[in-house]
Amino acid sequence: MDSATASLAPSQPPVSQRLLPVGVFDSGVGGLTVAGAMKRLLPHEPIFYIGDLARVPYGGRSPTTVRRYSFEISRLLLERGAKAIVVACNTASAVAVPDLRKEFTVPVLGVIDPGAAAAVASTRTGVVGVIGTRATIESGAYEEAIHRLNPDITVVSAPTPLLVPFIEEGWLEDEVTERVAARYLAPLLEANIDTLVLGCTHYPLLKPLLRKVVGPGVSLVDSALNCALALRDLLHAMQIAQQPGPEPGHFQVALTDVPGQFMEVAARALQLELGDVESIGVPT
Amino acid sequence: MDSATASLAPSQPPVSQRLLPVGVFDSGVGGLTVAGAMKRLLPHEPIFYIGDLARVPYGGRSPTTVRRYSFEISRLLLERGAKAIVVACNTASAVAVPDLRKEFTVPVLGVIDPGAAAAVASTRTGVVGVIGTRATIESGAYEEAIHRLNPDITVVSAPTPLLVPFIEEGWLEDEVTERVAARYLAPLLEANIDTLVLGCTHYPLLKPLLRKVVGPGVSLVDSALNCALALRDLLHAMQIAQQPGPEPGHFQVALTDVPGQFMEVAARALQLELGDVESIGVPT
Repeated sequence: MDSATASLAPSQPPVSQRLLPVGVFDSGVGGLTVAGAMKRLLPHEPIFYIGDLARVPYGGRSPTTVRRYSFEISRLLLERGAKAIVVACNTASAVAVPDLRKEFTVPVLGVIDPGAAAAVASTRTGVVGVIGTRATIESGAYEEAIHRLNPDITVVSAPTPLLVPFIEEGWLEDEVTERVAARYLAPLLEANIDTLVLGCTHYPLLKPLLRKVVGPGVSLVDSALNCALALRDLLHAMQIAQQPGPEPGHFQVALTDVPGQFMEVAARALQLELGDVESIGVPT
Repeated sequence: MDSATASLAPSQPPVSQRLLPVGVFDSGVGGLTVAGAMKRLLPHEPIFYIGDLARVPYGGRSPTTVRRYSFEISRLLLERGAKAIVVACNTASAVAVPDLRKEFTVPVLGVIDPGAAAAVASTRTGVVGVIGTRATIESGAYEEAIHRLNPDITVVSAPTPLLVPFIEEGWLEDEVTERVAARYLAPLLEANIDTLVLGCTHYPLLKPLLRKVVGPGVSLVDSALNCALALRDLLHAMQIAQQPGPEPGHFQVALTDVPGQFMEVAARALQLELGDVESIGVPT
């Protein structure tokens, strides 16, 4: 058992804790894919989402910087009463989750462990592909997490840095996007992967196109969806999940800078109702 | 005469001022194209370059945030003794140069006015195209600067947000990059532009490919080169240019976060010797 579940503790938490939101953060709005999956799986759960748009993307930054940003944003979530923190950002999950768990008493969940577990469950041939930003792939976090579960699995990784810009441009079904994806994925397909981890919270928006590129023989592991599944299990195990009621949980989005067009692209693709978006200062 | 040249003042500046560096900043390392042009045109000039990699890119951020970052970085340059500040970033040039000029006494030069002047000088048909990041194009800064010089020129602009990611990936001569560029530029070519302003400091690295896409009838205006030309004129007019000597001017690069692979791509393409790169804290 890791420290995420340490506060599983003996007695039942007070009822009021059920009303508190799950705090979710990402460097930008890519993590809305995680929030979208949470809305589907945990429709009654209040969510407070922070997108650190003033400092997006975390992907190219040093681990020290990403850890500092993650601590700052997590503190903002706790000020808003977060009963759990979901790190809906692969880069921050790769470098900051263990430290966040040491620092804070609420459970902290990243996207990498759930994605790795799903990949291990999915593979038949024992050859798993992972794609993500350069930072995520260079961190080796998925490979490490997969090997912790099964050291015999071969992991073939590739950084696919152009996919996020294509997604943010809204070219989700474009033939140029498809050609770039096909070029990136060719070595992984040649290595006979039967499972592909979408190791970036943007990538679920590209699922139909990636499905076309990899063909029917390869399972796509959506780390946003698997993170939401793991959160559901965790909230139920800790008995802090929101009780079902007539109304869906309140979904509040706060951003450290003004959103670009991608927020609309993401909200439309995810069928998310964003409501009033709050503007908050960059923490220092 | 604008406030940039206000310190042109009556008497000659002290000789020691000639030894001080020109401070150059960009949100990242794209501004190295400006530094590269300065090295060619002003080889004896010492340069202190700051790339704000911890907060790159400025392109998607609000004007308020970009102005704050620009002030913070400019202060760092002045602490290093900068005798002039070159804003080697189109986004910061578009929103921060007038305010920086109000705040600081050293001359401040952006990339937009020099590029606009070159475009006005170049066009024969009176139809000028401008490409840049979404932030630069939406600011309307080039259009405004061109119209200040000649209100009869028709300006046709297009945001080309995917070009920076392709350049940073090093796909400088790739056929996929060419297809994306051709798609972006088609409406501009249909509008019969005879001059195209490369309104992003990354784009000079893509000049050969863009030349192929636009054909021989369209002049490419390199705003990095034109900024360096304007700087040369300004330093000479103010009599603060470094005197020629046996050694080239010292070129110091400082970054607020660790560089990615793009710094190598840029340095190689620009034939720049970067020497020791200094790491500095993110200003707050």
